[in-house]
Amino acid sequence: MEKISVTTGKRIQLIDITDKIRDIVHKNGWKDGAVLLFIPHTTAGITINEGADPDVRRDIEETLAQLIPYRGNYRHAEGNSDAHIKTTLTGNSSFVILENGNLKLGTWQSIFFCEYDGPRNRNLWIQHLEE
Amino acid sequence: MEKISVTTGKRIQLIDITDKIRDIVHKNGWKDGAVLLFIPHTTAGITINEGADPDVRRDIEETLAQLIPYRGNYRHAEGNSDAHIKTTLTGNSSFVILENGNLKLGTWQSIFFCEYDGPRNRNLWIQHLEE
Amino acid sequence: MEKISVTTGKRIQLIDITDKIRDIVHKNGWKDGAVLLFIPHTTAGITINEGADPDVRRDIEETLAQLIPYRGNYRHAEGNSDAHIKTTLTGNSSFVILENGNLKLGTWQSIFFCEYDGPRNRNLWIQHLEE
Repeated sequence: MEKISVTTGKRIQLIDITDKIRDIVHKNGWKDGAVLLFIPHTTAGITINEGADPDVRRDIEETLAQLIPYRGNYRHAEGNSDAHIKTTLTGNSSFVILENGNLKLGTWQSIFFCEYDGPRNRNLWIQHLEE
Repeated sequence: MEKISVTTGKRIQLIDITDKIRDIVHKNGWKDGAVLLFIPHTTAGITINEGADPDVRRDIEETLAQLIPYRGNYRHAEGNSDAHIKTTLTGNSSFVILENGNLKLGTWQSIFFCEYDGPRNRNLWIQHLEE
Repeated sequence: MEKISVTTGKRIQLIDITDKIRDIVHKNGWKDGAVLLFIPHTTAGITINEGADPDVRRDIEETLAQLIPYRGNYRHAEGNSDAHIKTTLTGNSSFVILENGNLKLGTWQSIFFCEYDGPRNRNLWIQHLEE
């Protein structure tokens, strides 16, 4: 298993981590199968979406902020229930197929770490699975 | 890795692709482990839900359309931010376990390609993973 | 493939199943790779979120109940469309990495079965995948 670290700078922030994942795949010489990307946190998720136009991730950030408001009628005393709920809606794991040692992504796809209760220092775990 | 193509006919449309996935599994003679189903698009997702009553997928389509409206206060100039957000909420990959060369699904489960910005010609990638 | 059963007690209920999954991993002697957790139902999902404070899962349950109301303008005659929609938003499969025969989870992470149309007797399927 490999780990990468991600430093986030805002409370809600999607950060493109495609290059970091690609570097891990190349460094390990993984050729085929798939990589499992796992976020070991409960207030951060992972998604694959468009990386070309930064307005896409801003629209995702703002729409999720509106859909699940920061301040609401929540019980959890730490005051970050919205971040836990956003994590469940986004999911905390994702997969990418490998082909000839490369990440197999669609033309417009990038991999995003989804911070929902930052800024923080975060981690992501990567496991190679055999085809 | 295998590919299948899906032609969608509406802007928002869940299409049952279970038979297409089953055909790929049989053609390749995959017997056990699992198949990773990966959508290489950023405005389309994948879900496993009820296939028996078409009203279920219509309710999913309409509720997602209401929850994340087509026209909103979005920045992304292409006008399909809602489709990107729906993709993040649904997810772009899924898994099905294989048993004796068959898809192992629950009684009421079908696999749906989720078009959120159609009609378009779309693709789905399938990777077999070993148990 | 292994199966576990889960008995739910309310219509909407997140139940911590981490110990049940851990027992299956130990019983089978699975050492590394990952486990695929698959819910074979269409009105129940799975999520990984905070297990320490039960208020977190209560906030998730209540926020999802408000976001996708039980009674709405749905077509599906069985009256549980909200549960199908919640299942698509949550997802019906998840993954956990294994390391030296143990579930590799973050400090605050627990695995939750998400009942959206209970109370019912439910199942979860577990498949080991090789690294």
